Amino acid sequence: MTGDEKETTMKTANQVEILLVEDNPRDAELALRALRKRHLTNKLVWVKDGAAALDLIFGPDGAANNCVRCHPKIILLDLKLPKVGGLEVLRQLKSNPAAKTIPVVVLTSSREEQDLVRSYELGVNSYIVKPVNFDNFSEAVAQLGCYWLLLNEVPRPLAGADPSNPKP
Amino acid sequence: MTGDEKETTMKTANQVEILLVEDNPRDAELALRALRKRHLTNKLVWVKDGAAALDLIFGPDGAANNCVRCHPKIILLDLKLPKVGGLEVLRQLKSNPAAKTIPVVVLTSSREEQDLVRSYELGVNSYIVKPVNFDNFSEAVAQLGCYWLLLNEVPRPLAGADPSNPKP
Repeated sequence: MTGDEKETTMKTANQVEILLVEDNPRDAELALRALRKRHLTNKLVWVKDGAAALDLIFGPDGAANNCVRCHPKIILLDLKLPKVGGLEVLRQLKSNPAAKTIPVVVLTSSREEQDLVRSYELGVNSYIVKPVNFDNFSEAVAQLGCYWLLLNEVPRPLAGADPSNPKP
Repeated sequence: MTGDEKETTMKTANQVEILLVEDNPRDAELALRALRKRHLTNKLVWVKDGAAALDLIFGPDGAANNCVRCHPKIILLDLKLPKVGGLEVLRQLKSNPAAKTIPVVVLTSSREEQDLVRSYELGVNSYIVKPVNFDNFSEAVAQLGCYWLLLNEVPRPLAGADPSNPKP
């Protein structure tokens, strides 16, 4: 287990401020480094597929009960993901009253117009195309981390959520 | 007419990149200055009430025809506005397929939980509470301007929109 992996598995669901959903280890490492430089990784969890993301947010029964077990300040969501794709994750989050208030930023290599349009139709909060250049990618992640964690405001979790007692 | 007002009335609808909806002249001046420092005001229009904002986006018939006559990269929307309030502007924008893809950032003095919750329920892209301090306010506006204009991607306007030929 790498240091980054260890770092991102030590949080319980109710402590999550950033949920990074990214299957590409290189991109995830870069994002983690950029956020760590700004001291924004204390409450970050990294998952590698869409099913793990939905499980972390909803737990086994949350989606059906309109209940979330964590309410991050931001979800950074890749689109091309194993198990459950990013657009389907976005759809499930934004069609659920308890999860709809969680900001979701799509962070993807796709410049496809249909991905952009579909993401906004589903209610994405922001759509960032990953810069190809290493430094630009790091700067973009740092900038979006600062924006969503330090400037943007989110509601308190709905009554259905129980962050003090996340479901197992 | 002040220089700022002149600056913000010289654009036609199809040129708009930032739509600032703000009835407080002091806050609008501060926002304009902060954005101008980052060279982000070339395509900015400032309107002072919610009705003017809806008219600029939809024109006389746009809302009924699911058609927008401009598709800014960002709308900065105060909540307490004359004529039509900010939440109603947000509702009309986000319930219209052609306007739904325009990012809307609420920029308000309100920390009221019900405003936050209602904004996210309606589909706001981001919610910023105006910092009280002058320098912090300027820095926040500059940061959000850079984020939404330089980093975030928006879809091209839908076929219904006709940016080359805005309705009068």
